[in-house]
Amino acid sequence: MFELRPDASPPLVNQIINGLRDAIENQTLKPGAKVPSIRAFAAKYSVSTFTVVEAYDRLVAQGLLVSRGTAGFFVNRAAGDLLEAQASEPDTAKPAFNSEWYLQQIFESRQLAFKPGCGWLPNDWMFEDGLRRGLRQVASSVLELSGYGDPMGLAELRTLTAQNLQQDLRIVVPPNQLMLTHGASQALDLAVRTLVRPGDVVLVDDPGYPNLMSILRFQGATLVGVPRTPNGYDLDHLQRLLEQYRPSVFFTQPHLHSPTCTRTPLVQLHRLLQLATQHDFRLVENNLYADMIEEPLPCLTSLDQLQQVVYVGSYSKSISPNVRVGYMLANPELMQQLLQLKMRSGLTTSQVMERVVYAAITDGRWRKHLKRLRQRLAEAHQEVGRQLARLGFERFIDSDEGMYIWTRHPAIPDSAALLDDALDQGIMLGPGQLFMVDSQATGWMRFNVAFSTDPALWEQLEKLLVKHVRAVKDR
Amino acid sequence: MFELRPDASPPLVNQIINGLRDAIENQTLKPGAKVPSIRAFAAKYSVSTFTVVEAYDRLVAQGLLVSRGTAGFFVNRAAGDLLEAQASEPDTAKPAFNSEWYLQQIFESRQLAFKPGCGWLPNDWMFEDGLRRGLRQVASSVLELSGYGDPMGLAELRTLTAQNLQQDLRIVVPPNQLMLTHGASQALDLAVRTLVRPGDVVLVDDPGYPNLMSILRFQGATLVGVPRTPNGYDLDHLQRLLEQYRPSVFFTQPHLHSPTCTRTPLVQLHRLLQLATQHDFRLVENNLYADMIEEPLPCLTSLDQLQQVVYVGSYSKSISPNVRVGYMLANPELMQQLLQLKMRSGLTTSQVMERVVYAAITDGRWRKHLKRLRQRLAEAHQEVGRQLARLGFERFIDSDEGMYIWTRHPAIPDSAALLDDALDQGIMLGPGQLFMVDSQATGWMRFNVAFSTDPALWEQLEKLLVKHVRAVKDR
Repeated sequence: MFELRPDASPPLVNQIINGLRDAIENQTLKPGAKVPSIRAFAAKYSVSTFTVVEAYDRLVAQGLLVSRGTAGFFVNRAAGDLLEAQASEPDTAKPAFNSEWYLQQIFESRQLAFKPGCGWLPNDWMFEDGLRRGLRQVASSVLELSGYGDPMGLAELRTLTAQNLQQDLRIVVPPNQLMLTHGASQALDLAVRTLVRPGDVVLVDDPGYPNLMSILRFQGATLVGVPRTPNGYDLDHLQRLLEQYRPSVFFTQPHLHSPTCTRTPLVQLHRLLQLATQHDFRLVENNLYADMIEEPLPCLTSLDQLQQVVYVGSYSKSISPNVRVGYMLANPELMQQLLQLKMRSGLTTSQVMERVVYAAITDGRWRKHLKRLRQRLAEAHQEVGRQLARLGFERFIDSDEGMYIWTRHPAIPDSAALLDDALDQGIMLGPGQLFMVDSQATGWMRFNVAFSTDPALWEQLEKLLVKHVRAVKDR
Repeated sequence: MFELRPDASPPLVNQIINGLRDAIENQTLKPGAKVPSIRAFAAKYSVSTFTVVEAYDRLVAQGLLVSRGTAGFFVNRAAGDLLEAQASEPDTAKPAFNSEWYLQQIFESRQLAFKPGCGWLPNDWMFEDGLRRGLRQVASSVLELSGYGDPMGLAELRTLTAQNLQQDLRIVVPPNQLMLTHGASQALDLAVRTLVRPGDVVLVDDPGYPNLMSILRFQGATLVGVPRTPNGYDLDHLQRLLEQYRPSVFFTQPHLHSPTCTRTPLVQLHRLLQLATQHDFRLVENNLYADMIEEPLPCLTSLDQLQQVVYVGSYSKSISPNVRVGYMLANPELMQQLLQLKMRSGLTTSQVMERVVYAAITDGRWRKHLKRLRQRLAEAHQEVGRQLARLGFERFIDSDEGMYIWTRHPAIPDSAALLDDALDQGIMLGPGQLFMVDSQATGWMRFNVAFSTDPALWEQLEKLLVKHVRAVKDR
């Protein structure tokens, strides 16, 4: 049908895709025709079945092929119309390096061998058993499928979450001030849309959470970064910022802050709340990683009890990000606004999924799962710490809790310069630039310890480092 | 402990709640103390266990009681702090009648006996079997819990949805132009935030979808209503509006439009698209009820193929609103923006739930379920039509498809005037005022046929009608 050149560019997968597209376009492959089986194609062209699977999958995603299960793959009868429609569209070229684009790549590149830059946990670290039992339990229970469920979210899960917060963090809150959301991300988005008006100056941690910065900018906010130190906040600096900018809100993650994994001392939390009163700004506290802290650790909301603080939490890190169940707490008046916006912008959250989460965390094995998770993270911290030290990396803090190590190498002034070479080796890094409020180049980078224990990764990184240092010297 | 007066106001449930709150406040019931069992309480005060269950549940929601399963109910150890915190808060009084408030009531009032005003289907009309089998199937399959899943949503479900759209509506679209969302509501919200800037004039159907109007107003849009006629649009009127207001977008539901359940003739769809080209505005087509139409019925997107149209669909009406799986289609450039906003504002949708939906619709019984659903709706239309005719109601159109009948009674110039009396009888009506762009009083009201077949409802409504007519005469 066509010729493949394994040693030429573009990569084989793309050669197959282009070849089949051409064959469909010039009707060598007719609408509705069966295409060769994956195995037959691989044999005929002497390529791996993996390569063919990848090519066929992408052609299915483009709508040109249709998969009919065991019957095989067929040319979509409407493939001609699709090709015609695409021909009339302008090419959306891959944008130059920018955070938005890189963040999307992180979520999309599932083929990569190493993902030290990602923000989640490996499959077998998640609460799979609990979730599976939860799904089974819900499947055999009486399903309430009618209606949209409680606007605030499943009552049982709210009550239990409130009880856990009371027990662990001394946050005393009735369940009717706790709203379930579609992950912590929806909670943050609702807070942004409710509290921030276009033109407002808003404080965020610097470095901080890229997705939050992105949604704040989309809302029209001007962002001012509050520098993160190894010991929490720089409160003197914050005070100057407050006087200069009069911000309306500070979105912050006091404990296991991403990307640095630092904590904030109690005395600073207290002082920060005093500043919020004096300078009349609100705090949105993101406590996403609370379950990764061994002992109960008071947070802003533990002190403030929702006077000035909105609290955001999630089950993404302790059960699975895939369940998309988070929650937020606010004072009654603000909660009413948040609830109305939640209903306007997506109606209720999925009560079926909330039941599954409820079943999972009342399963009796959840606390044990969390303990084991913290243990594995601590072990991974040790291992990754050794590797970083071996290669001469410097760390922001010395700790073994949470998911991340924030680190830099004296020979790498700009960690983003490593990205392309790393991607070629199948490595997705977490360049510090992504997390900086003003997107400036930086040597810092974030390692997710759970995805960084494979010695093969460190062999590759060592080679990259050597190559990079040599290239810098040669210049 | 305290005295209950069954014949006095407030209702018994509230008397119990108030009594127990007082007992907790003055420490007759100490923190951590066990409260009487539901059965014991009911026996002691000679009230029904149902009343006690309701009161205890609400106290749990307020955080004052804690349920410990079979051990019973206990006073929350932090109840004192909660009461103190609440005492210092201003009362958020029930607002005067407004759509926002009433809409929330609709979602919250699950105790009501009759809900002709609601917008969903009864439990046993949903695809419960399929969903249950889907949950079981996913529970025993390999779960991908790591990561957030594909930003666009589960690839298999996108591919299948695209194939169904191609087959049923001749919308030819590759799966990578179809994004899964958290219900159609999120899809509409993403479209609003991407396409509408504060100050823009936006067209909507009048009457139309209250939640959509609400989110558009929140975005700062000025709404102009396009009157809905029994035969679709009034295109002459629309043309005048276009010349007068120069709108940027028209959000519309051509087929089985809510609340009127009207269709739009093909020739009007064609003409509307021509107007969109001439006057340079976009169309967002909400085809939420597509599965309730027997034969394939071309829609705006069938003609336009995403040149000017964004398409929104959902599995809420045909599987369950509780799964929260909807989808949207747009041209590649716009889809890129919608995807970025989806990721910013809530990251991915729940891949677990998307797998469940995929399993449900590939179950082999889904098409049969849809057929049976349409049949039941047609039968309910007949029955409700008879009752409306018997009481002298007038209908907007004579049809037996979809969920709603839009109707009015010559003796009721303002259907909202019936609301309070109806609520007293346990009936939640759908007053037309909710659906009007300018919220003006109107005699029209929306009946959800699936919730309106009980003869007892019509006995109550007849009494209400007689009472109302007499009251009007007496004035």
